[in-house]
Amino acid sequence: MMRIRLTLAYEGTDFCGWQLQPSDRTVQGELERALSVILGGPVRVHGSGRTDSGVHALGQVAHFDCPDGREGFPWRRSLNALLPPDVRVVDAGMAADDFHARFGARSKTYEYRLWHEREFCLPQRRRFVWACGPVDFERMEAAARVLTGEHDFAAFQNVGTDVGSTVRTVTSIERLAADSPLESAWRFSADGFLKQMVRNLMGCMVACGRGKLSVEEVRTILASGDRTTAPATVPPQGLTLISVVYGS
Amino acid sequence: MMRIRLTLAYEGTDFCGWQLQPSDRTVQGELERALSVILGGPVRVHGSGRTDSGVHALGQVAHFDCPDGREGFPWRRSLNALLPPDVRVVDAGMAADDFHARFGARSKTYEYRLWHEREFCLPQRRRFVWACGPVDFERMEAAARVLTGEHDFAAFQNVGTDVGSTVRTVTSIERLAADSPLESAWRFSADGFLKQMVRNLMGCMVACGRGKLSVEEVRTILASGDRTTAPATVPPQGLTLISVVYGS
Repeated sequence: MMRIRLTLAYEGTDFCGWQLQPSDRTVQGELERALSVILGGPVRVHGSGRTDSGVHALGQVAHFDCPDGREGFPWRRSLNALLPPDVRVVDAGMAADDFHARFGARSKTYEYRLWHEREFCLPQRRRFVWACGPVDFERMEAAARVLTGEHDFAAFQNVGTDVGSTVRTVTSIERLAADSPLESAWRFSADGFLKQMVRNLMGCMVACGRGKLSVEEVRTILASGDRTTAPATVPPQGLTLISVVYGS
Repeated sequence: MMRIRLTLAYEGTDFCGWQLQPSDRTVQGELERALSVILGGPVRVHGSGRTDSGVHALGQVAHFDCPDGREGFPWRRSLNALLPPDVRVVDAGMAADDFHARFGARSKTYEYRLWHEREFCLPQRRRFVWACGPVDFERMEAAARVLTGEHDFAAFQNVGTDVGSTVRTVTSIERLAADSPLESAWRFSADGFLKQMVRNLMGCMVACGRGKLSVEEVRTILASGDRTTAPATVPPQGLTLISVVYGS
Protein backbone atom coordinates (compact mmCIF):
# COMPACT_ATOMS: atom_id res chain seq x y z
CA MET A 1 0.00 0.00 0.00
CA MET A 2 1.01 3.60 -0.45
CA ARG A 3 -0.30 6.60 1.48
CA ILE A 4 -1.38 9.78 -0.31
CA ARG A 5 -1.69 13.16 1.38
CA LEU A 6 -4.16 15.75 0.06
CA THR A 7 -4.48 19.48 0.70
CA LEU A 8 -8.07 20.54 0.09
CA ALA A 9 -10.02 23.76 -0.38
CA TYR A 10 -13.78 23.86 -0.18
CA GLU A 11 -16.64 26.27 0.09
CA GLY A 12 -18.77 24.90 2.92
CA THR A 13 -22.03 26.62 1.90
CA ASP A 14 -23.60 23.58 0.27
CA PHE A 15 -21.93 20.87 2.38
CA CYS A 16 -23.26 19.32 5.59
CA GLY A 17 -19.73 19.57 6.91
CA TRP A 18 -16.69 17.34 6.44
CA GLN A 19 -17.78 14.07 7.93
CA LEU A 20 -19.45 11.32 5.92
CA GLN A 21 -23.22 11.14 6.47
CA PRO A 22 -25.54 8.45 5.17
CA SER A 23 -27.77 10.80 3.18
CA ASP A 24 -26.29 14.31 3.34
CA ARG A 25 -23.72 15.87 1.02
CA THR A 26 -20.34 16.08 2.79
CA VAL A 27 -16.76 16.78 1.73
CA GLN A 28 -15.51 13.39 2.90
CA GLY A 29 -18.39 11.74 1.04
CA GLU A 30 -17.58 13.52 -2.24
CA LEU A 31 -13.88 12.65 -1.90
CA GLU A 32 -14.52 8.99 -1.17
CA ARG A 33 -16.90 8.78 -4.10
CA ALA A 34 -14.37 10.33 -6.51
CA LEU A 35 -11.58 8.07 -5.20
CA SER A 36 -13.73 4.96 -5.52
CA VAL A 37 -14.17 5.79 -9.22
CA ILE A 38 -10.39 5.99 -9.67
CA LEU A 39 -9.54 2.98 -7.53
CA GLY A 40 -12.51 0.81 -8.42
CA GLY A 41 -13.63 0.13 -4.87
CA PRO A 42 -14.40 1.70 -1.51
CA VAL A 43 -11.77 4.07 -0.07
CA ARG A 44 -11.59 5.58 3.41
CA VAL A 45 -10.39 9.19 3.62
CA HIS A 46 -9.04 10.52 6.95
CA GLY A 47 -9.23 14.27 7.50
CA SER A 48 -7.26 16.35 10.00
CA GLY A 49 -10.56 16.90 11.77
CA ARG A 50 -14.19 17.61 11.06
CA THR A 51 -15.40 20.96 9.91
CA ASP A 52 -19.01 21.84 10.65
CA SER A 53 -21.78 22.40 8.16
CA GLY A 54 -21.18 25.70 6.35
CA VAL A 55 -17.53 26.06 7.42
CA HIS A 56 -14.97 26.59 4.60
CA ALA A 57 -11.40 25.41 4.12
CA LEU A 58 -8.37 26.64 2.24
CA GLY A 59 -5.93 24.09 3.65
CA GLN A 60 -7.74 21.05 5.05
CA VAL A 61 -5.41 18.02 5.04
CA ALA A 62 -6.46 14.42 4.50
CA HIS A 63 -4.90 11.09 3.63
CA PHE A 64 -5.92 7.75 2.12
CA ASP A 65 -4.21 4.51 1.20
CA CYS A 66 -4.14 2.83 -2.19
CA PRO A 67 -2.44 -0.22 -3.66
CA ASP A 68 1.17 0.14 -4.82
CA GLY A 69 1.92 0.84 -8.45
CA ARG A 70 0.46 4.32 -8.74
CA GLU A 71 3.69 6.26 -8.36
CA GLY A 72 3.41 9.41 -10.44
CA PHE A 73 -0.37 9.14 -10.74
CA PRO A 74 -1.88 12.62 -11.33
CA TRP A 75 -4.07 12.64 -8.22
CA ARG A 76 -4.76 16.35 -8.25
CA ARG A 77 -5.86 16.54 -11.88
CA SER A 78 -7.79 13.27 -11.76
CA LEU A 79 -9.66 14.05 -8.55
CA ASN A 80 -10.48 17.60 -9.64
CA ALA A 81 -11.97 16.19 -12.85
CA LEU A 82 -14.33 14.03 -10.75
CA LEU A 83 -15.11 16.34 -7.82
CA PRO A 84 -17.81 19.04 -7.82
CA PRO A 85 -16.48 22.63 -8.16
CA ASP A 86 -17.04 23.52 -4.50
CA VAL A 87 -14.25 21.18 -3.39
CA ARG A 88 -10.80 21.18 -5.00
CA VAL A 89 -7.57 19.29 -4.45
CA VAL A 90 -4.94 22.03 -4.10
CA ASP A 91 -2.04 19.64 -3.61
CA ALA A 92 -1.53 15.86 -3.59
CA GLY A 93 1.49 13.66 -3.10
CA MET A 94 3.03 10.58 -1.50
CA ALA A 95 3.26 10.62 2.28
CA ALA A 96 5.31 8.55 4.71
CA ASP A 97 3.62 5.29 5.75
CA ASP A 98 3.20 6.63 9.27
CA PHE A 99 1.75 10.00 8.24
CA HIS A 100 -1.71 10.45 9.73
CA ALA A 101 -3.82 13.51 8.87
CA ARG A 102 -5.61 13.47 12.21
CA PHE A 103 -3.21 12.05 14.78
CA GLY A 104 -0.13 13.74 13.30
CA ALA A 105 -1.57 17.28 13.35
CA ARG A 106 0.54 19.50 15.65
CA SER A 107 -1.34 22.77 15.18
CA LYS A 108 -4.15 24.32 13.20
CA THR A 109 -5.01 27.81 12.07
CA TYR A 110 -8.55 29.04 11.49
CA GLU A 111 -9.76 32.41 10.27
CA TYR A 112 -13.04 34.07 11.20
CA ARG A 113 -14.36 37.01 9.18
CA LEU A 114 -16.75 39.69 10.41
CA TRP A 115 -18.77 42.25 8.48
CA HIS A 116 -19.33 45.51 10.36
CA GLU A 117 -21.88 47.53 8.42
CA ARG A 118 -25.34 47.02 9.87
CA GLU A 119 -27.51 48.07 6.90
CA PHE A 120 -25.98 45.92 4.17
CA CYS A 121 -23.66 43.01 3.63
CA LEU A 122 -21.88 42.98 0.29
CA PRO A 123 -23.52 40.19 -1.78
CA GLN A 124 -20.09 38.99 -2.92
CA ARG A 125 -19.04 38.48 0.72
CA ARG A 126 -22.24 37.12 2.23
CA ARG A 127 -21.20 33.47 2.14
CA PHE A 128 -17.89 34.23 3.90
CA VAL A 129 -18.65 36.63 6.76
CA TRP A 130 -20.88 37.03 9.77
CA ALA A 131 -22.57 40.44 9.64
CA CYS A 132 -22.21 41.29 13.33
CA GLY A 133 -22.36 45.09 12.92
CA PRO A 134 -19.98 47.60 14.53
CA VAL A 135 -17.51 46.43 17.20
CA ASP A 136 -14.60 47.92 19.10
CA PHE A 137 -11.46 46.15 17.85
CA GLU A 138 -9.38 47.13 20.89
CA ARG A 139 -11.87 45.53 23.26
CA MET A 140 -11.88 42.39 21.09
CA GLU A 141 -8.10 42.31 21.15
CA ALA A 142 -8.09 42.66 24.93
CA ALA A 143 -10.44 39.66 25.16
CA ALA A 144 -8.19 37.77 22.72
CA ARG A 145 -5.21 38.30 25.03
CA VAL A 146 -7.13 36.72 27.93
CA LEU A 147 -8.05 33.72 25.76
CA THR A 148 -4.53 33.16 24.41
CA GLY A 149 -2.27 30.61 26.11
CA GLU A 150 -2.71 27.20 27.75
CA HIS A 151 -6.12 26.98 29.39
CA ASP A 152 -8.92 24.57 30.08
CA PHE A 153 -11.36 25.64 27.36
CA ALA A 154 -14.35 23.64 28.65
CA ALA A 155 -16.46 26.84 28.64
CA PHE A 156 -15.87 27.11 24.87
CA GLN A 157 -16.67 23.54 23.89
CA ASN A 158 -20.06 22.54 22.56
CA VAL A 159 -21.45 19.19 23.61
CA GLY A 160 -21.40 16.20 21.31
CA THR A 161 -17.87 14.85 21.34
CA ASP A 162 -16.05 13.34 24.29
CA VAL A 163 -12.44 14.32 23.79
CA GLY A 164 -11.00 13.66 27.23
CA SER A 165 -8.96 16.67 28.28
CA THR A 166 -10.30 20.09 27.40
CA VAL A 167 -6.95 21.78 27.93
CA ARG A 168 -5.55 23.38 24.76
CA THR A 169 -2.86 25.92 23.97
CA VAL A 170 -4.03 28.83 21.85
CA THR A 171 -0.72 30.16 20.50
CA SER A 172 -2.18 33.30 18.89
CA ILE A 173 -5.32 35.24 18.09
CA GLU A 174 -4.56 38.04 15.65
CA ARG A 175 -6.47 40.53 13.57
CA LEU A 176 -5.16 40.63 9.99
CA ALA A 177 -4.62 43.83 8.06
CA ALA A 178 -8.02 44.75 6.61
CA ASP A 179 -8.73 44.55 2.89
CA SER A 180 -11.93 46.54 3.48
CA PRO A 181 -12.91 48.92 6.29
CA LEU A 182 -16.22 47.06 6.53
CA GLU A 183 -14.67 43.62 7.10
CA SER A 184 -12.22 42.20 9.61
CA ALA A 185 -10.36 38.89 9.70
CA TRP A 186 -9.21 37.10 12.85
CA ARG A 187 -6.71 34.24 12.89
CA PHE A 188 -6.73 31.61 15.62
CA SER A 189 -3.82 29.17 16.01
CA ALA A 190 -3.71 26.35 18.57
CA ASP A 191 -2.34 22.86 19.11
CA GLY A 192 -5.93 21.74 18.68
CA PHE A 193 -9.48 23.06 18.95
CA LEU A 194 -12.46 21.59 20.78
CA LYS A 195 -15.85 21.25 19.10
CA GLN A 196 -16.95 24.70 17.80
CA MET A 197 -14.26 26.29 19.96
CA VAL A 198 -13.27 29.00 17.42
CA ARG A 199 -16.89 30.02 16.95
CA ASN A 200 -17.34 30.15 20.74
CA LEU A 201 -14.15 32.17 21.32
CA MET A 202 -15.31 34.54 18.58
CA GLY A 203 -18.74 34.87 20.21
CA CYS A 204 -17.02 35.92 23.41
CA MET A 205 -14.73 38.38 21.65
CA VAL A 206 -17.62 39.98 19.70
CA ALA A 207 -19.67 40.29 22.91
CA CYS A 208 -16.69 42.13 24.35
CA GLY A 209 -16.33 44.26 21.20
CA ARG A 210 -20.00 45.23 21.47
CA GLY A 211 -19.54 46.27 25.08
CA LYS A 212 -21.84 43.52 26.36
CA LEU A 213 -19.06 41.76 28.24
CA SER A 214 -16.04 43.14 30.08
CA VAL A 215 -12.56 41.68 29.77
CA GLU A 216 -12.87 40.68 33.43
CA GLU A 217 -16.04 38.74 32.64
CA VAL A 218 -14.22 36.93 29.82
CA ARG A 219 -11.63 35.87 32.38
CA THR A 220 -14.38 34.62 34.70
CA ILE A 221 -16.11 32.64 31.92
CA LEU A 222 -12.81 30.99 30.93
CA ALA A 223 -12.08 30.08 34.57
CA SER A 224 -15.63 28.76 35.15
CA GLY A 225 -15.32 25.96 32.61
CA ASP A 226 -19.07 26.36 32.19
CA ARG A 227 -20.36 26.57 28.61
CA THR A 228 -23.67 28.06 29.76
CA THR A 229 -21.95 31.22 31.02
CA ALA A 230 -20.35 32.04 27.62
CA PRO A 231 -22.04 33.84 24.70
CA ALA A 232 -23.68 31.81 21.91
CA THR A 233 -21.77 30.09 19.11
CA VAL A 234 -21.43 32.43 16.12
CA PRO A 235 -22.57 31.37 12.61
CA PRO A 236 -20.45 28.94 10.55
CA GLN A 237 -20.08 30.86 7.28
CA GLY A 238 -17.49 33.28 8.75
CA LEU A 239 -15.10 30.43 9.51
CA THR A 240 -12.35 28.94 7.31
CA LEU A 241 -9.77 26.26 8.17
CA ILE A 242 -6.59 27.87 6.85
CA SER A 243 -3.84 25.32 7.51
CA VAL A 244 -2.72 22.28 9.49
CA VAL A 245 0.87 21.84 10.60
CA TYR A 246 2.54 18.41 10.94
CA GLY A 247 5.94 17.26 12.10
CA SER A 248 7.74 16.60 15.33
CA MET B 1 -41.56 64.65 -7.53
CA MET B 2 -38.18 63.99 -5.98
CA ARG B 3 -35.31 62.04 -7.54
CA ILE B 4 -33.42 59.40 -5.56
CA ARG B 5 -29.96 58.14 -6.47
CA LEU B 6 -28.90 54.60 -5.50
CA THR B 7 -25.49 52.96 -5.40
CA LEU B 8 -25.89 49.20 -5.76
CA ALA B 9 -23.82 46.07 -5.27
CA TYR B 10 -24.86 42.73 -6.67
CA GLU B 11 -23.55 39.28 -7.32
CA GLY B 12 -24.54 38.56 -10.91
CA THR B 13 -24.39 34.75 -10.66
CA ASP B 14 -28.13 34.21 -10.35
CA PHE B 15 -29.32 37.25 -12.32
CA CYS B 16 -30.07 37.40 -16.03
CA GLY B 17 -28.29 40.74 -16.07
CA TRP B 18 -29.44 44.21 -15.13
CA GLN B 19 -32.22 44.91 -17.57
CA LEU B 20 -35.86 44.10 -16.87
CA GLN B 21 -37.05 40.94 -18.64
CA PRO B 22 -40.62 39.68 -18.80
CA SER B 23 -39.89 36.31 -17.20
CA ASP B 24 -36.23 36.25 -16.08
CA ARG B 25 -34.79 37.39 -12.76
CA THR B 26 -32.95 40.69 -13.24
CA VAL B 27 -31.50 43.36 -10.95
CA GLN B 28 -33.73 46.09 -12.34
CA GLY B 29 -36.72 43.78 -11.94
CA GLU B 30 -35.94 43.08 -8.27
CA LEU B 31 -35.44 46.79 -7.56
CA GLU B 32 -38.65 47.86 -9.26
CA ARG B 33 -40.55 45.19 -7.37
CA ALA B 34 -39.16 46.28 -3.99
CA LEU B 35 -39.83 49.96 -4.78
CA SER B 36 -43.39 49.23 -5.88
CA VAL B 37 -44.01 47.69 -2.44
CA ILE B 38 -42.75 50.86 -0.75
CA LEU B 39 -44.46 53.32 -3.10
CA GLY B 40 -47.64 51.34 -3.74
CA GLY B 41 -47.44 51.40 -7.50
CA PRO B 42 -45.18 50.82 -10.52
CA VAL B 43 -41.78 52.54 -10.44
CA ARG B 44 -39.24 52.83 -13.25
CA VAL B 45 -35.57 52.50 -12.26
CA HIS B 46 -32.88 53.89 -14.58
CA GLY B 47 -29.42 52.33 -14.33
CA SER B 48 -26.12 53.81 -15.54
CA GLY B 49 -26.12 51.04 -18.10
CA ARG B 50 -26.91 47.37 -18.48
CA THR B 51 -24.67 44.69 -17.10
CA ASP B 52 -24.81 41.29 -18.77
CA SER B 53 -26.02 38.05 -17.27
CA GLY B 54 -23.48 36.85 -14.69
CA VAL B 55 -21.64 40.19 -14.39
CA HIS B 56 -21.28 41.62 -10.86
CA ALA B 57 -21.32 45.17 -9.49
CA LEU B 58 -19.85 46.96 -6.51
CA GLY B 59 -20.89 50.46 -7.57
CA GLN B 60 -23.71 50.39 -10.10
CA VAL B 61 -25.66 53.67 -9.99
CA ALA B 62 -29.38 54.07 -10.63
CA HIS B 63 -32.12 56.61 -10.05
CA PHE B 64 -35.89 56.71 -9.72
CA ASP B 65 -38.52 59.34 -9.03
CA CYS B 66 -41.09 59.35 -6.26
CA PRO B 67 -43.76 61.75 -5.02
CA ASP B 68 -42.64 64.57 -2.70
CA GLY B 69 -42.95 64.15 1.03
CA ARG B 70 -40.44 61.37 1.60
CA GLU B 71 -37.55 63.56 2.72
CA GLY B 72 -35.53 61.59 5.23
CA PHE B 73 -37.07 58.26 4.23
CA PRO B 74 -34.65 55.38 5.06
CA TRP B 75 -34.33 54.13 1.47
CA ARG B 76 -31.27 52.00 2.09
CA ARG B 77 -32.62 50.14 5.09
CA SER B 78 -36.12 49.77 3.64
CA LEU B 79 -34.98 48.51 0.25
CA ASN B 80 -32.46 46.10 1.75
CA ALA B 81 -35.22 44.64 3.90
CA LEU B 82 -37.23 43.89 0.73
CA LEU B 83 -34.46 42.91 -1.72
CA PRO B 84 -32.93 39.42 -1.99
CA PRO B 85 -29.43 39.07 -0.46
CA ASP B 86 -27.63 39.02 -3.82
CA VAL B 87 -28.46 42.68 -4.44
CA ARG B 88 -27.87 45.41 -1.84
CA VAL B 89 -28.32 49.16 -1.69
CA VAL B 90 -24.92 50.47 -0.57
CA ASP B 91 -25.96 54.11 -0.59
CA ALA B 92 -29.14 56.08 -1.25
CA GLY B 93 -29.93 59.77 -1.22
CA MET B 94 -31.66 62.73 -2.84
CA ALA B 95 -30.33 63.74 -6.24
CA ALA B 96 -30.72 66.93 -8.24
CA ASP B 97 -33.82 66.99 -10.47
CA ASP B 98 -31.62 66.86 -13.54
CA PHE B 99 -29.43 63.97 -12.34
CA HIS B 100 -29.65 61.04 -14.75
CA ALA B 101 -27.90 57.74 -13.97
CA ARG B 102 -27.41 56.90 -17.64
CA PHE B 103 -27.09 60.19 -19.51
CA GLY B 104 -25.08 61.92 -16.79
CA ALA B 105 -22.37 59.22 -16.55
CA ARG B 106 -18.97 60.70 -17.47
CA SER B 107 -16.82 57.62 -16.96
CA LYS B 108 -17.00 54.05 -15.72
CA THR B 109 -14.53 51.64 -14.20
CA TYR B 110 -14.77 47.86 -14.55
CA GLU B 111 -12.56 45.16 -13.08
CA TYR B 112 -11.86 41.79 -14.65
CA ARG B 113 -10.31 38.99 -12.58
CA LEU B 114 -8.30 36.06 -13.92
CA TRP B 115 -7.30 32.80 -12.24
CA HIS B 116 -3.98 31.41 -13.43
CA GLU B 117 -3.64 27.88 -12.02
CA ARG B 118 -4.74 25.34 -14.60
CA GLU B 119 -5.47 22.34 -12.34
CA PHE B 120 -7.76 23.96 -9.81
CA CYS B 121 -9.80 27.07 -9.19
CA LEU B 122 -10.33 27.94 -5.54
CA PRO B 123 -14.02 27.16 -4.79
CA GLN B 124 -14.35 30.44 -2.88
CA ARG B 125 -13.27 32.38 -6.01
CA ARG B 126 -15.02 30.40 -8.73
CA ARG B 127 -17.97 32.77 -9.11
CA PHE B 128 -15.67 35.80 -9.49
CA VAL B 129 -12.82 34.79 -11.83
CA TRP B 130 -12.20 33.32 -15.25
CA ALA B 131 -9.76 30.41 -14.94
CA CYS B 132 -7.69 31.20 -18.03
CA GLY B 133 -4.49 29.45 -16.88
CA PRO B 134 -0.98 30.90 -17.03
CA VAL B 135 -0.35 34.15 -18.93
CA ASP B 136 2.55 36.57 -19.40
CA PHE B 137 1.56 39.80 -17.60
CA GLU B 138 4.11 41.90 -19.50
CA ARG B 139 2.66 40.86 -22.85
CA MET B 140 -0.85 41.63 -21.54
CA GLU B 141 0.31 45.05 -20.37
CA ALA B 142 1.88 45.74 -23.76
CA ALA B 143 -1.48 44.91 -25.40
CA ALA B 144 -3.23 47.13 -22.84
CA ARG B 145 -1.04 50.09 -23.87
CA VAL B 146 -2.11 49.65 -27.50
CA LEU B 147 -5.79 49.57 -26.48
CA THR B 148 -5.60 52.63 -24.20
CA GLY B 149 -6.58 56.04 -25.58
CA GLU B 150 -9.21 57.37 -27.97
CA HIS B 151 -9.98 54.80 -30.65
CA ASP B 152 -12.79 53.43 -32.75
CA PHE B 153 -13.52 50.24 -30.79
CA ALA B 154 -15.82 48.67 -33.43
CA ALA B 155 -13.67 45.49 -33.39
CA PHE B 156 -14.47 45.09 -29.68
CA GLN B 157 -18.23 45.61 -29.81
CA ASN B 158 -20.66 42.70 -29.93
CA VAL B 159 -23.74 43.07 -32.08
CA GLY B 160 -27.13 43.79 -30.58
CA THR B 161 -27.18 47.47 -29.77
CA ASP B 162 -26.99 50.36 -32.20
CA VAL B 163 -25.08 53.04 -30.34
CA GLY B 164 -24.08 55.33 -33.20
CA SER B 165 -20.41 56.16 -32.86
CA THR B 166 -18.09 53.40 -31.72
CA VAL B 167 -15.33 55.83 -30.74
CA ARG B 168 -14.49 55.72 -27.01
CA THR B 169 -11.64 56.92 -24.84
CA VAL B 170 -10.12 54.25 -22.63
CA THR B 171 -8.31 56.35 -20.03
CA SER B 172 -6.52 53.46 -18.33
CA ILE B 173 -6.07 49.70 -18.20
CA GLU B 174 -4.14 48.72 -15.09
CA ARG B 175 -3.23 45.55 -13.26
CA LEU B 176 -3.86 45.90 -9.52
CA ALA B 177 -1.49 44.64 -6.84
CA ALA B 178 -2.26 40.94 -6.43
CA ASP B 179 -3.87 39.56 -3.29
CA SER B 180 -2.94 36.05 -4.44
CA PRO B 181 -0.21 34.84 -6.82
CA LEU B 182 -2.85 32.71 -8.55
CA GLU B 183 -5.23 35.59 -9.30
CA SER B 184 -4.88 38.89 -11.13
CA ALA B 185 -7.20 41.90 -11.34
CA TRP B 186 -7.38 44.34 -14.25
CA ARG B 187 -9.11 47.72 -14.08
CA PHE B 188 -10.55 49.37 -17.19
CA SER B 189 -11.66 53.01 -17.12
CA ALA B 190 -13.30 54.81 -20.05
CA ASP B 191 -15.77 57.55 -20.88
CA GLY B 192 -18.06 54.71 -21.90
CA PHE B 193 -17.95 51.10 -23.02
CA LEU B 194 -19.60 49.44 -26.01
CA LYS B 195 -21.56 46.19 -25.63
CA GLN B 196 -19.27 43.54 -24.05
CA MET B 197 -16.29 45.76 -24.79
CA VAL B 198 -14.40 44.99 -21.55
CA ARG B 199 -14.80 41.26 -22.08
CA ASN B 200 -13.61 41.65 -25.69
CA LEU B 201 -10.60 43.80 -24.72
CA MET B 202 -9.75 41.21 -22.07
CA GLY B 203 -10.03 38.39 -24.61
CA CYS B 204 -7.50 40.20 -26.78
CA MET B 205 -5.14 40.86 -23.86
CA VAL B 206 -5.29 37.22 -22.67
CA ALA B 207 -4.63 35.97 -26.23
CA CYS B 208 -1.56 38.20 -26.17
CA GLY B 209 -0.58 36.96 -22.70
CA ARG B 210 -0.81 33.36 -23.92
CA GLY B 211 1.45 34.16 -26.87
CA LYS B 212 -1.33 33.51 -29.40
CA LEU B 213 -1.38 37.11 -30.61
CA SER B 214 1.44 39.64 -31.00
CA VAL B 215 1.14 43.24 -29.90
CA GLU B 216 1.36 44.18 -33.58
CA GLU B 217 -1.66 41.96 -34.31
CA VAL B 218 -3.60 43.69 -31.53
CA ARG B 219 -2.87 46.98 -33.27
CA THR B 220 -4.11 45.54 -36.57
CA ILE B 221 -7.34 44.19 -35.01
CA LEU B 222 -8.05 47.58 -33.39
CA ALA B 223 -7.44 49.39 -36.70
CA SER B 224 -9.57 46.90 -38.67
CA GLY B 225 -12.81 47.74 -36.85
CA ASP B 226 -13.79 44.15 -37.60
CA ARG B 227 -15.19 42.12 -34.69
CA THR B 228 -14.54 38.84 -36.51
CA THR B 229 -10.76 39.40 -36.41
CA ALA B 230 -10.64 39.73 -32.58
CA PRO B 231 -10.55 36.85 -30.05
CA ALA B 232 -13.78 35.60 -28.48
CA THR B 233 -15.62 37.37 -25.66
CA VAL B 234 -14.40 36.07 -22.28
CA PRO B 235 -16.87 34.72 -19.65
CA PRO B 236 -19.02 37.13 -17.59
CA GLN B 237 -18.23 35.97 -14.05
CA GLY B 238 -14.77 37.60 -14.02
CA LEU B 239 -16.31 41.06 -14.57
CA THR B 240 -17.45 43.61 -11.97
CA LEU B 241 -18.72 47.17 -12.49
CA ILE B 242 -16.69 49.07 -9.89
CA SER B 243 -17.85 52.68 -10.16
CA VAL B 244 -19.56 55.32 -12.26
CA VAL B 245 -18.42 58.94 -12.22
CA TYR B 246 -20.82 61.90 -12.72
CA GLY B 247 -20.38 65.62 -12.92
CA SER B 248 -19.36 68.21 -15.44
